[in-house]
Amino acid sequence: MDICKLNRIKDAMKNHGLPQMIISDPVSIFYLTGKWIYPGERLHALYISTEGEDCFVLNRLFPQDGDLGVRIRYYDDIEDGCEILAELADNDLPIGIDKNWPSRFLLRLQELGGASEYRNGSVIVDKVRQIKDENEQQAMRESGAKLDRVMGKLIPFAGAGLTEEELSAKCLDLIREEGFQGPSFAPITAYAGGAADPHHITDDSVGRFGDCVILDIGGMWNHYASDMTRTVFIGTASERQKEIYNIVLEANKRGIAAAKPGNKMSDVDKAARDYITEMGFGEYFTHRTGHSIGLEDHETGDVSLVNDEIIQPGQCFSIEPGIYLKDEGIGVRIEDIVLITEDGCEVLNNYPKEEIIIV
Amino acid sequence: MDICKLNRIKDAMKNHGLPQMIISDPVSIFYLTGKWIYPGERLHALYISTEGEDCFVLNRLFPQDGDLGVRIRYYDDIEDGCEILAELADNDLPIGIDKNWPSRFLLRLQELGGASEYRNGSVIVDKVRQIKDENEQQAMRESGAKLDRVMGKLIPFAGAGLTEEELSAKCLDLIREEGFQGPSFAPITAYAGGAADPHHITDDSVGRFGDCVILDIGGMWNHYASDMTRTVFIGTASERQKEIYNIVLEANKRGIAAAKPGNKMSDVDKAARDYITEMGFGEYFTHRTGHSIGLEDHETGDVSLVNDEIIQPGQCFSIEPGIYLKDEGIGVRIEDIVLITEDGCEVLNNYPKEEIIIV
Repeated sequence: MDICKLNRIKDAMKNHGLPQMIISDPVSIFYLTGKWIYPGERLHALYISTEGEDCFVLNRLFPQDGDLGVRIRYYDDIEDGCEILAELADNDLPIGIDKNWPSRFLLRLQELGGASEYRNGSVIVDKVRQIKDENEQQAMRESGAKLDRVMGKLIPFAGAGLTEEELSAKCLDLIREEGFQGPSFAPITAYAGGAADPHHITDDSVGRFGDCVILDIGGMWNHYASDMTRTVFIGTASERQKEIYNIVLEANKRGIAAAKPGNKMSDVDKAARDYITEMGFGEYFTHRTGHSIGLEDHETGDVSLVNDEIIQPGQCFSIEPGIYLKDEGIGVRIEDIVLITEDGCEVLNNYPKEEIIIV
Repeated sequence: MDICKLNRIKDAMKNHGLPQMIISDPVSIFYLTGKWIYPGERLHALYISTEGEDCFVLNRLFPQDGDLGVRIRYYDDIEDGCEILAELADNDLPIGIDKNWPSRFLLRLQELGGASEYRNGSVIVDKVRQIKDENEQQAMRESGAKLDRVMGKLIPFAGAGLTEEELSAKCLDLIREEGFQGPSFAPITAYAGGAADPHHITDDSVGRFGDCVILDIGGMWNHYASDMTRTVFIGTASERQKEIYNIVLEANKRGIAAAKPGNKMSDVDKAARDYITEMGFGEYFTHRTGHSIGLEDHETGDVSLVNDEIIQPGQCFSIEPGIYLKDEGIGVRIEDIVLITEDGCEVLNNYPKEEIIIV
């Protein structure tokens, strides 16, 4: 158990007036214990209390080697894990529940009178996870640097006559060759009309002379995700394509400039969006500007107009404005991950974006 | 919407005194609508009422082509899907909740006073899904027949000096070549000591002369799962191995003989288990005899001593006794899927098992 992270969670619980909670998300359990434990359909729950003893309730089929730094209460298939939780919990106090805990467990805990009130407690853990410590920052940096190398190797294939599916498969090969544990999401490799549709599903289209190509890729390194998008052009870029590219590039840079402590997450979205709107393409930037990232590619904390949370050092999120002109078969997105520092941000992806890339 | 299946669910709801329920499991939604819809983290819910109108609540990002046979209430990211559900539901009546519905939705629905009481409603849908209609039975038959062919092609490789991992990869290739949509679970390909440990994880062990090899494989065909286990021997089988094989084979056949309407699921377990116990190996048969199968490889309804439900025509489940002698490096399991008929059962896997197979 990482005592530093655990104490940050307990401090946040006190601030929220929540004396006890259940963490069941395997990612959050890894975050705290350094162990990946996947009990599938069987109940597992890390019970955390600001007052009493913490305890990990786990099926005996998943025995843990070594010390997790927390007492483990193993149970058998013939026992009811929820009964154990109801005994552990203070039944007269509210309890926080993991947002994704299957309802069958919550309904059973409620039936047993496990707590005085049940609240979604995930926001507490998710907000602590937003602020990366030094080890996490280093893993994020390394993950980004590795992805730069993958992007460099992938781009020449964008003009090599592959189908979108073949280009995706190539990307997965390169991600593995680079030593990533795997992709952090299914790569997006989209030509022309596909690039112009943010909901496009990779298919057997082949890139043609004059097409734009969106490459949105990421890998998992030392448990931390990277994520980057570049848009390149096959053979040539028209004046129109260049115009769109440069607007998106400037929006990306304005977003990055706004990514600093004290600003709100919505300020970053606004900086990117306002510029695209000024240039007349606001209605074609159809998604939020970015998302938080860390142990998962998408974590709690959107870079969007409705997120007024104040940016803090240690946060990592994407800045990925785009313009999608379906009728013209043009789509451009440029994405980088930033790590917030004391007075600004460090950009974790450094594959070049200033010059239009022709392949 | 399959009206016949829907009506069976509504009849079961009436028998359970449950006037309304929410179905969110994508498999159950496919079962009813014939469409796979995966809205990920966004709420989707098929609201079913025995009295009022049914309605599918779905995010606008997942538009459905054609008629689903049920009204769709699309919502935006700026709307609260749970509020829509709370309006749809009769707030003065109990409601059934899907067993895997993320707690964040249930907590919100409770906060909004969506119903008078919240119950785990999945058992109703799961029990309807147990009884396969004619189309489903045909898909299960075809899935089983295809798997027979894969097993026939895989067995020669069990003695070809591959590692367990390579043998698994070979199995996946054969499953795809046979035209399956994919595997129904990660294949188990285990030699000797690995075969003797039911919790063994496929590794880089290589099969040696005299080893037993467990091959537990399955594929998805037309959305329905197949699943079969055969145990073969490399080069030779010792008298001890033959003794164990024949006991497991007889247990498998006794289980199949007990699989008929009117018997209990536990009778099937007992028929297989009692024989193994009589022969002196009861303590080495360490798992239930089988599991229900259909749209998923493992469905609700175990073949175990504690399941006293009466077997009905249309049910499909596995019969897979095994004996695991860790100290001797011997493990044998023989598994077939049965489809219950009016007066007995049809065995859906027909790869030979009577004679010991030496590879």
